[in-house]
Amino acid sequence: MSATRYGYLGPEGTFTQMALLSWAASHGGEQVPFGSVDSALDALRRSEIDAAMVPIENSVEGGVSATLDALASGDPLVVIGEVNVPITFVLAARAGMPLEEIRAVGTHSHAWAQVRGWMDARLPGAAYVPTLSTAAAAAGLAGDVEQGYDAAVCAPVAAANHGLTVLADDIGDRAGAVTRFVLVARPGALPERTGADKTTVMLFQRDDRAGGLLELLEQFAVRGINMTRLESRPTKSTLGSYCFSIDFEGHVLDERVGEALMGLKRVCAEVRFLGSYPREDGAQTEVAPLTGDEDFSAARNWLHSLRRP
Amino acid sequence: MSATRYGYLGPEGTFTQMALLSWAASHGGEQVPFGSVDSALDALRRSEIDAAMVPIENSVEGGVSATLDALASGDPLVVIGEVNVPITFVLAARAGMPLEEIRAVGTHSHAWAQVRGWMDARLPGAAYVPTLSTAAAAAGLAGDVEQGYDAAVCAPVAAANHGLTVLADDIGDRAGAVTRFVLVARPGALPERTGADKTTVMLFQRDDRAGGLLELLEQFAVRGINMTRLESRPTKSTLGSYCFSIDFEGHVLDERVGEALMGLKRVCAEVRFLGSYPREDGAQTEVAPLTGDEDFSAARNWLHSLRRP
Amino acid sequence: MSATRYGYLGPEGTFTQMALLSWAASHGGEQVPFGSVDSALDALRRSEIDAAMVPIENSVEGGVSATLDALASGDPLVVIGEVNVPITFVLAARAGMPLEEIRAVGTHSHAWAQVRGWMDARLPGAAYVPTLSTAAAAAGLAGDVEQGYDAAVCAPVAAANHGLTVLADDIGDRAGAVTRFVLVARPGALPERTGADKTTVMLFQRDDRAGGLLELLEQFAVRGINMTRLESRPTKSTLGSYCFSIDFEGHVLDERVGEALMGLKRVCAEVRFLGSYPREDGAQTEVAPLTGDEDFSAARNWLHSLRRP
Amino acid sequence: MSATRYGYLGPEGTFTQMALLSWAASHGGEQVPFGSVDSALDALRRSEIDAAMVPIENSVEGGVSATLDALASGDPLVVIGEVNVPITFVLAARAGMPLEEIRAVGTHSHAWAQVRGWMDARLPGAAYVPTLSTAAAAAGLAGDVEQGYDAAVCAPVAAANHGLTVLADDIGDRAGAVTRFVLVARPGALPERTGADKTTVMLFQRDDRAGGLLELLEQFAVRGINMTRLESRPTKSTLGSYCFSIDFEGHVLDERVGEALMGLKRVCAEVRFLGSYPREDGAQTEVAPLTGDEDFSAARNWLHSLRRP
Repeated sequence: MSATRYGYLGPEGTFTQMALLSWAASHGGEQVPFGSVDSALDALRRSEIDAAMVPIENSVEGGVSATLDALASGDPLVVIGEVNVPITFVLAARAGMPLEEIRAVGTHSHAWAQVRGWMDARLPGAAYVPTLSTAAAAAGLAGDVEQGYDAAVCAPVAAANHGLTVLADDIGDRAGAVTRFVLVARPGALPERTGADKTTVMLFQRDDRAGGLLELLEQFAVRGINMTRLESRPTKSTLGSYCFSIDFEGHVLDERVGEALMGLKRVCAEVRFLGSYPREDGAQTEVAPLTGDEDFSAARNWLHSLRRP
Repeated sequence: MSATRYGYLGPEGTFTQMALLSWAASHGGEQVPFGSVDSALDALRRSEIDAAMVPIENSVEGGVSATLDALASGDPLVVIGEVNVPITFVLAARAGMPLEEIRAVGTHSHAWAQVRGWMDARLPGAAYVPTLSTAAAAAGLAGDVEQGYDAAVCAPVAAANHGLTVLADDIGDRAGAVTRFVLVARPGALPERTGADKTTVMLFQRDDRAGGLLELLEQFAVRGINMTRLESRPTKSTLGSYCFSIDFEGHVLDERVGEALMGLKRVCAEVRFLGSYPREDGAQTEVAPLTGDEDFSAARNWLHSLRRP
Repeated sequence: MSATRYGYLGPEGTFTQMALLSWAASHGGEQVPFGSVDSALDALRRSEIDAAMVPIENSVEGGVSATLDALASGDPLVVIGEVNVPITFVLAARAGMPLEEIRAVGTHSHAWAQVRGWMDARLPGAAYVPTLSTAAAAAGLAGDVEQGYDAAVCAPVAAANHGLTVLADDIGDRAGAVTRFVLVARPGALPERTGADKTTVMLFQRDDRAGGLLELLEQFAVRGINMTRLESRPTKSTLGSYCFSIDFEGHVLDERVGEALMGLKRVCAEVRFLGSYPREDGAQTEVAPLTGDEDFSAARNWLHSLRRP
Repeated sequence: MSATRYGYLGPEGTFTQMALLSWAASHGGEQVPFGSVDSALDALRRSEIDAAMVPIENSVEGGVSATLDALASGDPLVVIGEVNVPITFVLAARAGMPLEEIRAVGTHSHAWAQVRGWMDARLPGAAYVPTLSTAAAAAGLAGDVEQGYDAAVCAPVAAANHGLTVLADDIGDRAGAVTRFVLVARPGALPERTGADKTTVMLFQRDDRAGGLLELLEQFAVRGINMTRLESRPTKSTLGSYCFSIDFEGHVLDERVGEALMGLKRVCAEVRFLGSYPREDGAQTEVAPLTGDEDFSAARNWLHSLRRP
């Protein structure tokens, strides 16, 4: 992957940019902020950029619907890597603003949800003003236009970028909060198989199959495959009609993964393959007994011998 | 249920108020708007109100995390009814504002996600300004303070409430979009069993059980119980640790539901019962063969005869 | 159980009598040989005897069809105990008969099947003459009537009973062969629960249920119950129509067993309960996590609290 | 298949010979009776014959252990065809013997089990004398040697062969009793795929796999494969250790069958393939939705496209 133009969910100073900065291969490349996940992925589909870093799930807020939905339709894109970023929020304001005088706080709605405990305890009277991103909240305070809020909840880097004063550090209600980002590209050469891989798929159920999700999960279970993320998403047609965004351990080149994908392909209305890529933490997949490549190869050779005795 | 004070996710003019207005029992009662799902449910827990109408899932946007999470922790609350509301958005502005002069549009982020197609086609240059709710966007235009936007995406009723002009009708990208709301109360007498009931639970997995979700779903499958909604939510501890918000057909007083709940109680770290209540559409549950109350009673009587021969 | 008349599959000197002799409670009682399993169980049903010892499975030959079928129909009977007897065969003849002059060997067909290897190696030319039992083969040699055979394959005790000479010891092809016998009685007080119990059932499938055996086995699996024996038997109507004779760990008074039996009762055409009784080896059941009585009680109490809030 | 020497479980006049006679391809060949299933299959393994007809299951008595066990070990053999024969028993005696004077009846123990009802009703005092086969019982009456019985239970053809008088017709307790025979050969060219095929396997469980039989059956279930026969057989080592003899619909050349066999090969200690062959009744397999060859091919092609994008 020799991408030279990397898109990300901007503006500068978002956690997404922090994810991109921690992706070593991106260091020589150009970084292009986008106003939304949709616009970043559209640019990628139009080949205006070579890859895009977008958030996919947060340990507190759950799946990022915009990303899940943008990957689920439109021209195919695939995940080629992942980055986990610890999420730390600060309360920042212009120099000279004392904490006790803050009447309104601007931030993105997801960030607001993660600092509600701190706010209720320390600034119970402060109003909430939604902004497009945490970085935009910080930028707003630095500009000339009145924003309707006196402080921003944002990443430390955004406060620094805009010359704001940090009034309180690490104000998230959950210690250890993490957001997982994925680097997305157009389909091309598969990332190499490392033995510590994940695969991402979107599964659309058939209406005419009883059992439903259970039947899908059995396709993983009978091959000893472990899921690491499962999100249901509405298919946008009617209430009660779902598709499932799933990450599981293993690479599409693994035999057990290949057979599971074929099984899913048969029983699902649609399977959208969203990539196989190395885990950031490098944790080798514990292959369940009797589900290694050699077990599948031995079984296939045996079947061939039966068929051509 | 003789509630006299009904809370709802406000302000006036939201789709949630429309849901409450369509709940016949509420007509004689008082209606109290709240700024967030959390604050409405907290007021309910403190007995300041008797019931609260809150959104739980949208056919386009999926589960409403704030509601799912607020029900999942804290003092127990239960759902006692549901209302489905068709979602229709209008573009509204002050009298005299022509469509072609709109530079910025205010609305709630979920609404924005549902009108992106129309906006890209008709107002491609307009900026997006997030607001606390669709009704707040309309209210902002009606007030004296400059809001940074010239038009609002909101419900028809909100445009009417605030004397705005509707520039475009029914601008949602998905025809037939629906949001489902639930009426929540403190635990008390169970809603009567009607044969057309749903039950809502939140299931927390044990870390030490292989199989995981498959094992949970089998508890439904072996009793022939049909799920109508499944959402995974992070448990807020680490990435990859989930709980599941599930609606299924049937009432806690149904034998098959009782046995399934007992099975889940055994194999889950925690099962949070969030109520049994009549379906709004009145569709009678199709009880799978051999899973009716009479089948369970016959089996129980038989077991008793074995145990006391 | 104060039985005083014990039937068994005779005649004297069979392995079945050895099983009965090893059943301590039988020592003060009367022992009545029967010519077939059917006649012993019929006598039991008519209250002519109080219990009957019959073979149910052999480690080499498999299930004993006559017993399985006799328990599966007719007035209900239940197993109240089990005895495992090591099976050792001898080749016996009248005094003075040399091994090399044996032209024909009499024994029961099941015994013949277990000594075929030895016979092929040592007496390859000998003809086989079927007899009603191994003991009958020995008795025949001791009588005055010409039997058409010169030697018998039988239990050591039968050779001794009839004054025969043992020409070869321990001639079974499988070292460690064991036959399992069960003591059968009319339904009455259940054998006490010891924590080291087995339960025996006969399950008849419904014709109209897809999934079949898998569905039955899941009733055990979801309650963590371990099967120790499974035999399919034809239902005697058409080819391909089966019932299943199953032993599993646990006692009908165990909560998990009770719930599994109720589940089977619902999904099967018929469940015939054939008793709960202590294992001969006294091996305590390893109760799978979350399937103990206390887990079921806790779940039931919780369900009651939901139903009567 | 141009076999010219056909072995069968003899002697002449057995139901097995009747099965062989109904196998059209055998008509020009030589027919060789054997004294046991073992000796017939051993001769086949030594290439002394080209095929062997042996019984495998009876609608009343169940699986034929001798056949199941002889196929389960030793050099590989495969089933290449099946024949179902209605089983009708007659009571036959020498000319002049009146029914009321019969004191003892000779027959094979399996036949005896199938006429017990008739015997109890009409000849309650008659003793049972076991013989090697039903045909041998008839032959014995026709010879010069005293047999210890005055009448035989045998097939009509055996009575006719030996010039016996039929005292009673159709004396089986079950109308419609059927025995299924299989024609066995050494592995060679597979019988052609007809769309109305069966496959026979013997599955040996691993000791170290929890779940056991359930896990094996799921390999069929996830590919929509229907079983038509399941017999458990002891592995001859210890009580409670089983293998499973299974017939299922489909041919080893079917995609779904191939994948199921590979899955079984992985999770079993051993899978013994015992042949794919046309059903006698010609009933076309109802292929479950999404499990046809075209579904598997489409899935495989899709997987290839993912792996080489």
